[in-house]
Amino acid sequence: MTKRRFREAQADLPPAAGNGLLDRRLFLEYGAVFGALLLTPRPAAPGAPTSAFNIDPADPPWMHQPGKPFSHYGVPSPHESKVIRWIAANPAVPGNGVSWSPLHDLEGTITPTGLHFERHHNGVPDIDPAQHRLVIHGLTQRALSFTMDDLMRYPMRSALIFLECGGNSNQGWNLEPIQTKVSFLHGLVSCGEWTGVPLSILLDEAGIDAGARWLIAEGADAIAMNVSIPIEKAFDDAILAVYQNGERIRPEHGYPLRLVLPGWEGVMNVKWLRRLRAAAEPVMARNETSRYTELLPSGKARQFTFVMETKSVITAPSFGMTLEESGFYEISGLAWSGRGRVRSVEVSADGGRSWAPAALQEPVLSKCFTRFRIPWRWDGGPATLMSRATDETGSRQPLRADLVRERGRQGYFHYHAVVSWAVGEDGLLRHVYI
Amino acid sequence: MTKRRFREAQADLPPAAGNGLLDRRLFLEYGAVFGALLLTPRPAAPGAPTSAFNIDPADPPWMHQPGKPFSHYGVPSPHESKVIRWIAANPAVPGNGVSWSPLHDLEGTITPTGLHFERHHNGVPDIDPAQHRLVIHGLTQRALSFTMDDLMRYPMRSALIFLECGGNSNQGWNLEPIQTKVSFLHGLVSCGEWTGVPLSILLDEAGIDAGARWLIAEGADAIAMNVSIPIEKAFDDAILAVYQNGERIRPEHGYPLRLVLPGWEGVMNVKWLRRLRAAAEPVMARNETSRYTELLPSGKARQFTFVMETKSVITAPSFGMTLEESGFYEISGLAWSGRGRVRSVEVSADGGRSWAPAALQEPVLSKCFTRFRIPWRWDGGPATLMSRATDETGSRQPLRADLVRERGRQGYFHYHAVVSWAVGEDGLLRHVYI
Repeated sequence: MTKRRFREAQADLPPAAGNGLLDRRLFLEYGAVFGALLLTPRPAAPGAPTSAFNIDPADPPWMHQPGKPFSHYGVPSPHESKVIRWIAANPAVPGNGVSWSPLHDLEGTITPTGLHFERHHNGVPDIDPAQHRLVIHGLTQRALSFTMDDLMRYPMRSALIFLECGGNSNQGWNLEPIQTKVSFLHGLVSCGEWTGVPLSILLDEAGIDAGARWLIAEGADAIAMNVSIPIEKAFDDAILAVYQNGERIRPEHGYPLRLVLPGWEGVMNVKWLRRLRAAAEPVMARNETSRYTELLPSGKARQFTFVMETKSVITAPSFGMTLEESGFYEISGLAWSGRGRVRSVEVSADGGRSWAPAALQEPVLSKCFTRFRIPWRWDGGPATLMSRATDETGSRQPLRADLVRERGRQGYFHYHAVVSWAVGEDGLLRHVYI
Repeated sequence: MTKRRFREAQADLPPAAGNGLLDRRLFLEYGAVFGALLLTPRPAAPGAPTSAFNIDPADPPWMHQPGKPFSHYGVPSPHESKVIRWIAANPAVPGNGVSWSPLHDLEGTITPTGLHFERHHNGVPDIDPAQHRLVIHGLTQRALSFTMDDLMRYPMRSALIFLECGGNSNQGWNLEPIQTKVSFLHGLVSCGEWTGVPLSILLDEAGIDAGARWLIAEGADAIAMNVSIPIEKAFDDAILAVYQNGERIRPEHGYPLRLVLPGWEGVMNVKWLRRLRAAAEPVMARNETSRYTELLPSGKARQFTFVMETKSVITAPSFGMTLEESGFYEISGLAWSGRGRVRSVEVSADGGRSWAPAALQEPVLSKCFTRFRIPWRWDGGPATLMSRATDETGSRQPLRADLVRERGRQGYFHYHAVVSWAVGEDGLLRHVYI
């Protein structure tokens, strides 16, 4: 194995794009880059203890007494108590609103279940699973009713997928860029493993009539939240999810049963699912007419914009973080597409004048978060960091100006333009429009 | 789309192996199989509400009042309060012992972070991350000390991997099969996403001397837990993990820093990592000499048995579950290998006389849990369910008799034989040896 230190190799490093972006394969070839500028070397004490039973008086206090005992169900360290979902709810109707995933505090691709974003219309019902029923009815050969025990006997499948609210990032439509953390602008998206019964099996069993083009899905919350789902999607990859990240779904994510439509907007993934009605026409519910539709400059509205579009965002560094010194940083972020796999993510450090391909963390899965990374050498001067995703269908994340030109600014939903973070000479990051 | 019900198709179904095992692709071709025998048809009420604001007096009580508000950090439903890690600790030293993941209550492949198994030797230290240091020293060109903030500046990578205690399943060495849930026999294994700094980067920076063949890793718990790691593994895929399933590692899993060695036995994945000392020889610590070694029939002991071997277990149905009626069931379980990807899992319903290939849930990842499934029609008579995994290197899980013949019964660690569940005519499952 060749070990080569950055200080020796630096002169040979070609830039991958302007303003300090380096080749995504840097660490495979050149070893340490970041540390060379960072570390505080400290000689180890001679005769440092190597035995399991030789704890030195100078060792930290938590080594001098036995630790805490085992626990039935773990929770985060008290030192991480600030890593929470940030809540924005209607003061008059506290169950109506959202809570954001703290993307700026997270890494990898799985969202911790306790930090998965929430969007509720009238709160989280406390459902007794023994009393819960799923009914499939309407234009079917037979109406069926299932207990949870019934459903647990069915075959299951799993999918690692993202869920995103159609209203995520909607402050991007503002005239001026909002100055807030990435999480409170883009954190209505999360990712995890959902496991349950393929909906197609139950629809086959009910016998869907030829005239049925839609399924009307209804939740058991205090607003009987409902939406219309094209029957083709229901037969394609829809899951009646019972498990989330291995355990039964949490109350705020639909316990005991959630409809999961991979890649489609969050509102359609009906939580606390109680009814599926096969119908010839959509129900034209509130949340597919007056809400979750997009008013275009022409005065017409886009409706049934199901698929969440190709999108990416740099989570580090991002607004609220400070670069303490010039030197090497890893730029890291998330990309996703409701149409399939992310094919590439390009990153710019010079406000879009030049772009370099980021490394994508394997495995790159369909309709799932993809973590991207690229090394960057900040020279201490102004920089503007941007990321742009392209999915396997060729759909590419638009620049904001292009998105606004197409959609106007009244749409409110499905904002997915390139996000730009400007770095000042003071190392502070702020949100800018490019 | 052709929809075909099982009752029509059943006569055509060829068996995949003896005693009711059916083709793993059944649901792709034949639609509903399980439900036909299970459902309680109930006609839907005429005029069932379809509006979001039309809640019927007959609707369940939780629809008649607003639900609970948003939460900063979610927890499971109170109805799932029995889904916990089961603790077995030393009464005199409560921080010494294990807690099992409840595999019988879980599905998919991700283990919920709060239910990831624990193995501690002297409890869980309460570490202040601001005070924590990682020191790399010994046979290096320079000794280095890192704060957590230092480490956070380094490039990171993620891996979805299993962790398994070398002592998992060790009651399999007993003369008689223990009658307990799958979780309390095999639940010292869990799976999740770990993210952190590739160790190779820091070793390059320290400059490892040519004579260094081992790294001695030490934790900051009250036993200063230490083990020896071959330097090749450290340079290969070792991670200094900071995040687990997206958030900072939980205290019981090594907060704030854990050494993760994909595919290698749990004890080597040192929690609360504080020191890495490059050395010419292993340290011969307690946990690689008197423990985590295996006494063979010859009287010699196997030592440094790092890699966790090819293994699988059926989690449903399994001991403690009852089949209420004859008919269709999905057999579901987990397979894994420390050497790489699972290539295949075969399932038998007749005690090993015949085997059928199970379906593997995609993605099948290296050194990660793979969920397998196969449909089975129980005829109400005796059956013995077994699973047998083979990995991409060709390593196949042994039958118990073969494992005992090779290793004897004093080894205690690395039990990975085929597990067998016998189904009685009463539908009860018990653990048997085949």
